Amino acid sequence: MLSKSNIKRITGLHQKKYRQREGLFVAEGIKVINELLQSSFQLEAIYGIDASFLNISRDDSVIFQEVTLAELKKVSFLKTPQTALALFKIPENVLTISDGITVVLDDVRDPGNLGTIIRLCDWFGVSSLVCSSQTVDCYNPKVVQATMGSLSRVSITYVDIEGYLKEEKRPVYGTFMEGKNIYGSTLPSEAVIIMGNEANGISDTVARFVTQKIAIPRFGQLQKTESLNVATATAICLSEFKRNTSIEK
Amino acid sequence: MLSKSNIKRITGLHQKKYRQREGLFVAEGIKVINELLQSSFQLEAIYGIDASFLNISRDDSVIFQEVTLAELKKVSFLKTPQTALALFKIPENVLTISDGITVVLDDVRDPGNLGTIIRLCDWFGVSSLVCSSQTVDCYNPKVVQATMGSLSRVSITYVDIEGYLKEEKRPVYGTFMEGKNIYGSTLPSEAVIIMGNEANGISDTVARFVTQKIAIPRFGQLQKTESLNVATATAICLSEFKRNTSIEK
Repeated sequence: MLSKSNIKRITGLHQKKYRQREGLFVAEGIKVINELLQSSFQLEAIYGIDASFLNISRDDSVIFQEVTLAELKKVSFLKTPQTALALFKIPENVLTISDGITVVLDDVRDPGNLGTIIRLCDWFGVSSLVCSSQTVDCYNPKVVQATMGSLSRVSITYVDIEGYLKEEKRPVYGTFMEGKNIYGSTLPSEAVIIMGNEANGISDTVARFVTQKIAIPRFGQLQKTESLNVATATAICLSEFKRNTSIEK
Repeated sequence: MLSKSNIKRITGLHQKKYRQREGLFVAEGIKVINELLQSSFQLEAIYGIDASFLNISRDDSVIFQEVTLAELKKVSFLKTPQTALALFKIPENVLTISDGITVVLDDVRDPGNLGTIIRLCDWFGVSSLVCSSQTVDCYNPKVVQATMGSLSRVSITYVDIEGYLKEEKRPVYGTFMEGKNIYGSTLPSEAVIIMGNEANGISDTVARFVTQKIAIPRFGQLQKTESLNVATATAICLSEFKRNTSIEK
Protein backbone atom coordinates (compact mmCIF):
# COMPACT_ATOMS: atom_id res chain seq x y z
CA MET A 1 0.00 0.00 0.00
CA LEU A 2 1.00 3.60 -0.60
CA SER A 3 1.84 5.57 2.53
CA LYS A 4 0.77 9.19 2.87
CA SER A 5 4.37 10.35 2.66
CA ASN A 6 4.88 8.37 -0.55
CA ILE A 7 1.73 9.83 -2.09
CA LYS A 8 3.00 13.30 -1.25
CA ARG A 9 6.45 12.51 -2.62
CA ILE A 10 5.16 11.13 -5.94
CA THR A 11 2.59 13.85 -6.61
CA GLY A 12 5.28 16.41 -5.80
CA LEU A 13 7.34 15.05 -8.69
CA HIS A 14 4.75 16.45 -11.10
CA GLN A 15 6.51 19.77 -10.41
CA LYS A 16 9.96 20.57 -11.74
CA LYS A 17 11.32 22.01 -8.50
CA TYR A 18 10.57 18.80 -6.60
CA ARG A 19 12.03 16.69 -9.40
CA GLN A 20 15.22 18.72 -9.18
CA ARG A 21 15.33 18.54 -5.38
CA GLU A 22 14.71 14.78 -5.28
CA GLY A 23 16.59 13.94 -8.50
CA LEU A 24 13.70 11.69 -9.52
CA PHE A 25 11.03 11.50 -12.21
CA VAL A 26 7.81 9.53 -12.69
CA ALA A 27 7.07 7.06 -15.48
CA GLU A 28 3.66 5.44 -15.88
CA GLY A 29 2.55 2.34 -17.72
CA ILE A 30 4.06 -1.07 -18.39
CA LYS A 31 5.47 -0.17 -21.82
CA VAL A 32 7.32 2.99 -20.78
CA ILE A 33 8.57 1.45 -17.52
CA ASN A 34 9.84 -1.69 -19.24
CA GLU A 35 11.75 0.35 -21.81
CA LEU A 36 13.35 2.44 -19.08
CA LEU A 37 14.19 -0.70 -17.05
CA GLN A 38 16.15 -1.98 -20.05
CA SER A 39 18.15 1.24 -20.34
CA SER A 40 20.80 2.91 -18.21
CA PHE A 41 18.19 4.71 -16.09
CA GLN A 42 18.36 3.72 -12.44
CA LEU A 43 15.19 2.53 -10.78
CA GLU A 44 14.28 4.06 -7.41
CA ALA A 45 10.86 2.56 -6.72
CA ILE A 46 8.08 0.80 -8.57
CA TYR A 47 4.41 0.47 -7.71
CA GLY A 48 1.92 -1.70 -9.53
CA ILE A 49 -1.09 -3.95 -9.29
CA ASP A 50 0.88 -6.92 -10.65
CA ALA A 51 4.66 -7.38 -11.05
CA SER A 52 4.38 -10.12 -13.64
CA PHE A 53 4.13 -7.78 -16.64
CA LEU A 54 7.24 -5.87 -15.61
CA ASN A 55 10.77 -6.80 -16.65
CA ILE A 56 12.10 -6.39 -13.13
CA SER A 57 15.50 -7.93 -12.44
CA ARG A 58 16.18 -9.90 -9.25
CA ASP A 59 17.95 -6.88 -7.75
CA ASP A 60 15.05 -4.61 -8.50
CA SER A 61 12.31 -6.91 -7.31
CA VAL A 62 12.84 -5.83 -3.72
CA ILE A 63 11.83 -2.33 -4.84
CA PHE A 64 8.45 -3.48 -6.22
CA GLN A 65 5.44 -2.58 -4.10
CA GLU A 66 2.01 -3.97 -4.81
CA VAL A 67 -0.68 -1.30 -4.74
CA THR A 68 -4.31 -1.02 -5.85
CA LEU A 69 -5.60 0.83 -8.90
CA ALA A 70 -7.38 3.23 -6.53
CA GLU A 71 -4.02 4.06 -4.93
CA LEU A 72 -2.39 4.58 -8.34
CA LYS A 73 -5.21 6.93 -9.24
CA LYS A 74 -4.19 9.16 -6.31
CA VAL A 75 -0.67 9.67 -7.65
CA SER A 76 -1.20 9.43 -11.41
CA PHE A 77 -1.15 12.53 -13.58
CA LEU A 78 -3.20 10.64 -16.19
CA LYS A 79 -6.98 10.74 -16.39
CA THR A 80 -7.04 6.96 -16.50
CA PRO A 81 -4.16 5.63 -14.39
CA GLN A 82 -1.96 2.89 -15.79
CA THR A 83 -1.43 -0.36 -13.87
CA ALA A 84 2.11 0.58 -12.83
CA LEU A 85 4.09 3.67 -11.87
CA ALA A 86 7.83 3.91 -11.31
CA LEU A 87 10.31 6.44 -10.02
CA PHE A 88 13.64 6.68 -11.83
CA LYS A 89 16.73 8.72 -11.02
CA ILE A 90 17.33 11.74 -13.23
CA PRO A 91 20.75 11.17 -14.83
CA GLU A 92 23.51 13.75 -14.55
CA ASN A 93 23.17 16.60 -17.04
CA VAL A 94 26.42 16.04 -18.92
CA LEU A 95 26.72 17.20 -22.52
CA THR A 96 27.58 14.23 -24.73
CA ILE A 97 27.58 14.85 -28.45
CA SER A 98 27.62 11.95 -30.87
CA ASP A 99 28.65 12.04 -34.51
CA GLY A 100 26.04 12.56 -37.17
CA ILE A 101 23.07 14.80 -36.57
CA THR A 102 22.44 16.71 -33.34
CA VAL A 103 19.09 18.44 -32.78
CA VAL A 104 19.12 21.65 -30.72
CA LEU A 105 15.92 23.10 -29.26
CA ASP A 106 15.73 26.84 -28.68
CA ASP A 107 12.98 27.20 -26.06
CA VAL A 108 10.42 24.60 -27.13
CA ARG A 109 7.72 24.96 -24.46
CA ASP A 110 5.01 22.41 -25.18
CA PRO A 111 5.48 19.00 -23.48
CA GLY A 112 3.68 17.20 -26.32
CA ASN A 113 6.00 18.77 -28.89
CA LEU A 114 9.11 17.83 -26.91
CA GLY A 115 7.83 14.26 -26.48
CA THR A 116 7.17 13.96 -30.22
CA ILE A 117 10.62 15.40 -31.04
CA ILE A 118 12.32 12.87 -28.72
CA ARG A 119 10.43 10.05 -30.50
CA LEU A 120 11.50 11.47 -33.87
CA CYS A 121 15.16 11.64 -32.77
CA ASP A 122 14.93 8.00 -31.74
CA TRP A 123 13.28 6.99 -35.04
CA PHE A 124 15.84 8.83 -37.16
CA GLY A 125 18.83 7.62 -35.15
CA VAL A 126 19.68 11.02 -33.64
CA SER A 127 21.23 10.16 -30.30
CA SER A 128 21.90 13.65 -28.89
CA LEU A 129 19.28 16.28 -28.25
CA VAL A 130 20.53 19.57 -26.79
CA CYS A 131 17.95 21.84 -25.14
CA SER A 132 18.14 25.48 -24.07
CA SER A 133 17.54 25.95 -20.36
CA GLN A 134 14.12 27.47 -21.14
CA THR A 135 12.98 24.37 -23.04
CA VAL A 136 10.32 22.35 -21.20
CA ASP A 137 11.80 19.74 -18.82
CA CYS A 138 12.07 16.33 -20.49
CA TYR A 139 11.26 14.69 -17.13
CA ASN A 140 7.89 16.45 -17.02
CA PRO A 141 5.39 13.53 -16.77
CA LYS A 142 3.58 14.63 -19.95
CA VAL A 143 6.87 14.49 -21.88
CA VAL A 144 7.87 11.12 -20.40
CA GLN A 145 4.47 9.74 -21.44
CA ALA A 146 4.57 11.25 -24.94
CA THR A 147 8.00 9.74 -25.67
CA MET A 148 6.61 6.20 -25.37
CA GLY A 149 9.95 4.93 -24.08
CA SER A 150 12.20 6.78 -26.55
CA LEU A 151 13.55 8.77 -23.60
CA SER A 152 15.73 5.75 -22.85
CA ARG A 153 17.49 5.92 -26.24
CA VAL A 154 18.12 9.65 -26.76
CA SER A 155 20.68 11.52 -24.67
CA ILE A 156 19.12 14.84 -23.62
CA THR A 157 21.05 17.70 -22.02
CA TYR A 158 20.07 21.21 -20.95
CA VAL A 159 22.76 23.78 -21.62
CA ASP A 160 23.43 27.41 -22.41
CA ILE A 161 23.04 26.78 -26.15
CA GLU A 162 24.98 29.89 -27.16
CA GLY A 163 27.99 28.56 -25.25
CA TYR A 164 27.53 25.16 -26.86
CA LEU A 165 27.11 26.52 -30.40
CA LYS A 166 30.25 28.66 -30.07
CA GLU A 167 32.30 25.46 -29.80
CA GLU A 168 30.44 23.51 -32.48
CA LYS A 169 32.47 22.68 -35.59
CA ARG A 170 29.73 21.15 -37.75
CA PRO A 171 27.50 23.29 -40.03
CA VAL A 172 24.54 24.69 -38.08
CA TYR A 173 21.15 24.57 -39.85
CA GLY A 174 18.05 26.53 -38.88
CA THR A 175 14.66 26.98 -40.59
CA PHE A 176 13.72 30.51 -41.61
CA MET A 177 11.04 31.81 -43.98
CA GLU A 178 13.74 33.31 -46.21
CA GLY A 179 15.98 30.22 -46.08
CA LYS A 180 17.03 28.06 -49.03
CA ASN A 181 14.51 25.41 -50.14
CA ILE A 182 15.39 22.33 -48.03
CA TYR A 183 14.34 20.02 -50.89
CA GLY A 184 16.89 21.54 -53.24
CA SER A 185 19.74 21.60 -50.72
CA THR A 186 22.52 19.05 -50.41
CA LEU A 187 22.42 18.13 -46.77
CA PRO A 188 25.45 16.71 -44.94
CA SER A 189 25.47 13.64 -42.71
CA GLU A 190 27.22 15.63 -39.96
CA ALA A 191 25.21 18.66 -38.86
CA VAL A 192 23.42 20.54 -36.12
CA ILE A 193 19.75 21.37 -36.69
CA ILE A 194 18.17 24.10 -34.54
CA MET A 195 14.40 24.11 -34.02
CA GLY A 196 12.83 27.21 -32.49
CA ASN A 197 10.15 28.20 -30.04
CA GLU A 198 6.47 27.55 -30.95
CA ALA A 199 5.53 31.24 -31.11
CA ASN A 200 8.77 33.03 -31.95
CA GLY A 201 10.89 30.56 -33.90
CA ILE A 202 14.66 30.75 -33.49
CA SER A 203 15.69 33.69 -31.29
CA ASP A 204 17.99 36.39 -32.68
CA THR A 205 20.82 35.55 -30.29
CA VAL A 206 20.79 31.90 -31.39
CA ALA A 207 20.24 32.77 -35.09
CA ARG A 208 23.72 34.34 -35.12
CA PHE A 209 25.20 30.84 -34.92
CA VAL A 210 23.21 29.49 -37.87
CA THR A 211 25.53 28.91 -40.83
CA GLN A 212 22.88 27.50 -43.23
CA LYS A 213 19.38 28.99 -43.37
CA ILE A 214 16.88 26.55 -44.85
CA ALA A 215 13.12 26.67 -45.45
CA ILE A 216 10.38 24.08 -45.81
CA PRO A 217 8.43 25.47 -48.77
CA ARG A 218 4.69 25.95 -48.52
CA PHE A 219 2.58 24.43 -51.30
CA GLY A 220 -0.93 25.71 -50.59
CA GLN A 221 -2.19 28.05 -53.31
CA LEU A 222 -3.54 30.56 -50.86
CA GLN A 223 -0.22 30.72 -49.01
CA LYS A 224 -1.98 31.61 -45.81
CA THR A 225 -1.02 28.71 -43.58
CA GLU A 226 0.89 30.47 -40.88
CA SER A 227 3.50 27.91 -40.00
CA LEU A 228 4.14 24.28 -39.40
CA ASN A 229 4.04 23.02 -35.85
CA VAL A 230 7.62 22.63 -34.52
CA ALA A 231 7.26 18.84 -34.15
CA THR A 232 6.04 18.35 -37.74
CA ALA A 233 8.78 20.70 -39.00
CA THR A 234 11.33 18.55 -37.11
CA ALA A 235 9.87 15.45 -38.77
CA ILE A 236 10.29 16.94 -42.24
CA CYS A 237 13.84 18.22 -41.53
CA LEU A 238 15.06 14.90 -40.13
CA SER A 239 13.43 13.02 -43.00
CA GLU A 240 15.30 15.23 -45.49
CA PHE A 241 18.65 14.92 -43.71
CA LYS A 242 18.34 11.14 -43.52
CA ARG A 243 16.59 10.14 -46.75
CA ASN A 244 19.74 9.89 -48.87
CA THR A 245 21.51 7.52 -46.48
CA SER A 246 18.43 5.32 -46.71
CA ILE A 247 18.39 5.17 -50.51
CA GLU A 248 22.14 4.43 -50.69
CA LYS A 249 21.70 1.35 -48.54
CA MET B 1 -24.58 39.65 -22.24
CA LEU B 2 -24.95 35.91 -22.59
CA SER B 3 -28.39 34.54 -21.76
CA LYS B 4 -28.75 31.27 -19.89
CA SER B 5 -30.21 29.63 -22.98
CA ASN B 6 -27.25 30.77 -25.06
CA ILE B 7 -24.77 29.46 -22.48
CA LYS B 8 -26.53 26.10 -22.59
CA ARG B 9 -26.62 26.11 -26.37
CA ILE B 10 -22.91 26.91 -26.76
CA THR B 11 -21.63 24.48 -24.13
CA GLY B 12 -23.85 21.81 -25.70
CA LEU B 13 -21.89 22.23 -28.93
CA HIS B 14 -18.84 20.71 -27.22
CA GLN B 15 -20.67 17.43 -27.84
CA LYS B 16 -20.99 15.89 -31.29
CA LYS B 17 -24.67 14.99 -30.95
CA TYR B 18 -25.62 18.61 -30.27
CA ARG B 19 -23.38 19.86 -33.09
CA GLN B 20 -25.20 17.49 -35.45
CA ARG B 21 -28.63 18.46 -34.14
CA GLU B 22 -27.94 22.21 -34.34
CA GLY B 23 -25.71 22.07 -37.43
CA LEU B 24 -23.27 24.44 -35.69
CA PHE B 25 -19.74 24.42 -34.34
CA VAL B 26 -17.70 26.66 -32.03
CA ALA B 27 -14.54 28.57 -32.96
CA GLU B 28 -12.55 30.50 -30.38
CA GLY B 29 -9.98 33.25 -30.74
CA ILE B 30 -9.52 36.20 -33.08
CA LYS B 31 -7.17 34.41 -35.46
CA VAL B 32 -9.30 31.31 -36.05
CA ILE B 33 -12.53 33.33 -36.28
CA ASN B 34 -11.06 35.83 -38.74
CA GLU B 35 -9.82 33.04 -41.01
CA LEU B 36 -13.24 31.38 -40.97
CA LEU B 37 -14.96 34.74 -41.63
CA GLN B 38 -12.89 35.07 -44.81
CA SER B 39 -13.91 31.61 -46.02
CA SER B 40 -17.15 30.07 -47.25
CA PHE B 41 -18.23 29.15 -43.71
CA GLN B 42 -21.46 30.87 -42.69
CA LEU B 43 -21.48 32.80 -39.44
CA GLU B 44 -24.34 32.16 -37.03
CA ALA B 45 -23.35 34.25 -34.00
CA ILE B 46 -20.29 35.94 -32.59
CA TYR B 47 -19.51 36.96 -29.03
CA GLY B 48 -16.53 39.01 -27.91
CA ILE B 49 -15.22 41.66 -25.60
CA ASP B 50 -14.39 43.96 -28.53
CA ALA B 51 -15.52 43.79 -32.17
CA SER B 52 -12.70 45.95 -33.49
CA PHE B 53 -10.21 43.08 -33.91
CA LEU B 54 -12.67 41.00 -35.91
CA ASN B 55 -13.06 41.19 -39.69
CA ILE B 56 -16.82 41.35 -39.46
CA SER B 57 -18.64 42.54 -42.58
CA ARG B 58 -21.52 45.02 -42.43
CA ASP B 59 -24.01 42.17 -42.82
CA ASP B 60 -22.47 40.21 -40.00
CA SER B 61 -22.09 43.07 -37.58
CA VAL B 62 -25.69 42.72 -36.45
CA ILE B 63 -24.77 39.25 -35.20
CA PHE B 64 -21.97 40.52 -32.92
CA GLN B 65 -22.77 40.52 -29.22
CA GLU B 66 -20.54 42.18 -26.69
CA VAL B 67 -19.85 39.98 -23.67
CA THR B 68 -17.39 40.00 -20.77
CA LEU B 69 -14.36 37.74 -20.37
CA ALA B 70 -16.11 36.15 -17.36
CA GLU B 71 -19.04 35.22 -19.60
CA LEU B 72 -16.72 33.78 -22.25
CA LYS B 73 -15.09 31.69 -19.55
CA LYS B 74 -18.44 30.02 -18.90
CA VAL B 75 -18.76 28.77 -22.47
CA SER B 76 -15.12 28.26 -23.45
CA PHE B 77 -13.62 24.81 -23.66
CA LEU B 78 -10.18 26.36 -23.21
CA LYS B 79 -8.47 26.75 -19.84
CA THR B 80 -7.80 30.40 -20.65
CA PRO B 81 -10.69 31.73 -22.73
CA GLN B 82 -9.95 33.79 -25.81
CA THR B 83 -11.45 37.26 -26.26
CA ALA B 84 -13.98 36.08 -28.85
CA LEU B 85 -16.08 33.01 -29.62
CA ALA B 86 -18.17 32.39 -32.72
CA LEU B 87 -20.69 29.87 -33.94
CA PHE B 88 -20.49 28.80 -37.57
CA LYS B 89 -22.77 26.56 -39.61
CA ILE B 90 -21.42 23.09 -40.36
CA PRO B 91 -21.31 22.81 -44.16
CA GLU B 92 -23.04 20.00 -45.99
CA ASN B 93 -21.08 16.76 -46.02
CA VAL B 94 -20.64 16.44 -49.80
CA LEU B 95 -17.69 14.50 -51.17
CA THR B 96 -15.65 16.78 -53.43
CA ILE B 97 -12.37 15.38 -54.70
CA SER B 98 -9.79 17.67 -56.27
CA ASP B 99 -6.95 16.67 -58.55
CA GLY B 100 -3.55 15.96 -57.08
CA ILE B 101 -3.20 14.33 -53.70
CA THR B 102 -6.11 13.27 -51.50
CA VAL B 103 -5.47 12.19 -47.90
CA VAL B 104 -7.80 9.52 -46.47
CA LEU B 105 -8.01 8.87 -42.72
CA ASP B 106 -8.96 5.39 -41.53
CA ASP B 107 -10.26 5.99 -37.98
CA VAL B 108 -7.87 8.64 -36.64
CA ARG B 109 -9.23 9.24 -33.13
CA ASP B 110 -7.13 11.93 -31.49
CA PRO B 111 -8.36 15.53 -32.00
CA GLY B 112 -4.79 16.91 -31.82
CA ASN B 113 -3.66 14.51 -34.55
CA LEU B 114 -6.59 15.42 -36.82
CA GLY B 115 -5.95 19.13 -36.26
CA THR B 116 -2.27 18.72 -37.14
CA ILE B 117 -3.14 16.68 -40.24
CA ILE B 118 -5.58 19.38 -41.44
CA ARG B 119 -2.81 22.00 -41.01
CA LEU B 120 -0.41 19.76 -42.94
CA CYS B 121 -2.92 19.31 -45.80
CA ASP B 122 -3.25 23.08 -45.97
CA TRP B 123 0.55 23.59 -45.94
CA PHE B 124 1.14 21.01 -48.66
CA GLY B 125 -1.73 22.18 -50.86
CA VAL B 126 -3.90 19.09 -50.34
CA SER B 127 -7.43 20.42 -50.67
CA SER B 128 -9.45 17.27 -49.99
CA LEU B 129 -9.33 15.22 -46.82
CA VAL B 130 -11.63 12.17 -46.71
CA CYS B 131 -12.36 10.69 -43.27
CA SER B 132 -13.92 7.38 -42.26
CA SER B 133 -17.08 7.79 -40.23
CA GLN B 134 -15.19 6.64 -37.10
CA THR B 135 -12.57 9.38 -37.46
CA VAL B 136 -12.88 12.10 -34.79
CA ASP B 137 -15.25 14.91 -35.78
CA CYS B 138 -13.39 17.83 -37.38
CA TYR B 139 -15.86 20.24 -35.73
CA ASN B 140 -14.81 19.05 -32.28
CA PRO B 141 -13.60 22.27 -30.56
CA LYS B 142 -10.15 20.76 -29.90
CA VAL B 143 -9.74 20.03 -33.60
CA VAL B 144 -11.01 23.47 -34.65
CA GLN B 145 -8.47 25.04 -32.28
CA ALA B 146 -5.57 22.83 -33.37
CA THR B 147 -6.12 23.65 -37.06
CA MET B 148 -5.33 27.33 -36.46
CA GLY B 149 -7.69 28.38 -39.26
CA SER B 150 -6.62 25.75 -41.80
CA LEU B 151 -10.13 24.28 -41.51
CA SER B 152 -11.27 27.06 -43.83
CA ARG B 153 -8.94 25.91 -46.65
CA VAL B 154 -9.26 22.11 -46.63
CA SER B 155 -12.48 20.38 -47.75
CA ILE B 156 -13.24 17.61 -45.24
CA THR B 157 -15.87 14.92 -45.77
CA TYR B 158 -16.92 11.90 -43.73
CA VAL B 159 -17.78 8.89 -45.85
CA ASP B 160 -17.86 5.13 -46.00
CA ILE B 161 -14.24 4.98 -47.17
CA GLU B 162 -14.56 1.49 -48.66
CA GLY B 163 -17.33 2.75 -50.92
CA TYR B 164 -15.22 5.76 -51.85
CA LEU B 165 -12.04 3.76 -52.51
CA LYS B 166 -13.92 1.31 -54.75
CA GLU B 167 -14.58 4.16 -57.19
CA GLU B 168 -11.12 5.74 -56.93
CA LYS B 169 -9.02 5.60 -60.13
CA ARG B 170 -5.72 7.02 -58.78
CA PRO B 171 -3.06 4.78 -57.18
CA VAL B 172 -3.80 4.24 -53.48
CA TYR B 173 -0.80 4.46 -51.11
CA GLY B 174 -0.69 3.21 -47.55
CA THR B 175 2.17 2.88 -45.04
CA PHE B 176 3.00 -0.63 -43.82
CA MET B 177 6.04 -2.03 -42.02
CA GLU B 178 6.73 -4.34 -44.97
CA GLY B 179 6.14 -1.62 -47.59
CA LYS B 180 8.66 -0.29 -50.11
CA ASN B 181 11.06 2.39 -48.84
CA ILE B 182 9.26 5.69 -49.47
CA TYR B 183 12.59 7.46 -50.11
CA GLY B 184 13.43 5.12 -52.97
CA SER B 185 9.97 5.22 -54.56
CA THR B 186 8.92 7.37 -57.51
CA LEU B 187 5.80 9.05 -56.23
CA PRO B 188 3.11 10.38 -58.59
CA SER B 189 1.52 13.83 -58.44
CA GLU B 190 -1.96 12.23 -58.54
CA ALA B 191 -2.54 9.82 -55.66
CA VAL B 192 -4.55 8.84 -52.62
CA ILE B 193 -2.63 8.42 -49.34
CA ILE B 194 -4.32 6.46 -46.53
CA MET B 195 -3.24 7.09 -42.93
CA GLY B 196 -4.39 4.63 -40.28
CA ASN B 197 -5.66 4.56 -36.72
CA GLU B 198 -3.23 5.50 -33.88
CA ALA B 199 -3.22 2.05 -32.30
CA ASN B 200 -4.03 -0.31 -35.16
CA GLY B 201 -2.80 1.37 -38.34
CA ILE B 202 -4.74 0.74 -41.54
CA SER B 203 -7.55 -1.78 -41.04
CA ASP B 204 -7.63 -5.00 -43.05
CA THR B 205 -10.83 -4.07 -44.87
CA VAL B 206 -9.30 -0.78 -46.04
CA ALA B 207 -5.86 -2.32 -46.75
CA ARG B 208 -7.48 -4.34 -49.57
CA PHE B 209 -7.79 -1.13 -51.57
CA VAL B 210 -4.12 -0.16 -51.18
CA THR B 211 -2.32 -0.55 -54.51
CA GLN B 212 1.13 0.67 -53.32
CA LYS B 213 2.48 -0.32 -49.92
CA ILE B 214 5.17 2.08 -48.73
CA ALA B 215 7.24 2.36 -45.54
CA ILE B 216 9.05 5.17 -43.76
CA PRO B 217 12.34 3.47 -42.81
CA ARG B 218 13.56 3.57 -39.22
CA PHE B 219 17.14 4.76 -38.72
CA GLY B 220 17.73 4.14 -35.02
CA GLN B 221 20.41 1.51 -34.39
CA LEU B 222 18.39 -0.23 -31.73
CA GLN B 223 15.35 -0.46 -34.00
CA LYS B 224 13.07 -0.40 -31.01
CA THR B 225 11.07 2.76 -31.66
CA GLU B 226 7.60 1.37 -31.94
CA SER B 227 6.09 3.65 -34.53
CA LEU B 228 5.80 7.20 -35.67
CA ASN B 229 2.82 9.18 -34.51
CA VAL B 230 0.21 9.36 -37.32
CA ALA B 231 0.55 13.15 -37.65
CA THR B 232 4.37 13.03 -38.01
CA ALA B 233 4.04 10.11 -40.46
CA THR B 234 1.61 12.24 -42.51
CA ALA B 235 4.13 15.10 -42.47
CA ILE B 236 6.87 12.86 -43.85
CA CYS B 237 4.61 11.27 -46.51
CA LEU B 238 3.29 14.62 -47.78
CA SER B 239 6.82 16.03 -47.79
CA GLU B 240 7.99 13.11 -49.96
CA PHE B 241 5.04 13.33 -52.37
CA LYS B 242 5.52 17.08 -52.83
CA ARG B 243 9.30 17.61 -52.68
CA ASN B 244 9.94 16.94 -56.38
CA THR B 245 7.40 19.49 -57.58
CA SER B 246 9.17 22.00 -55.36
CA ILE B 247 12.63 21.35 -56.80
CA GLU B 248 11.35 21.49 -60.40
CA LYS B 249 9.96 24.99 -59.86
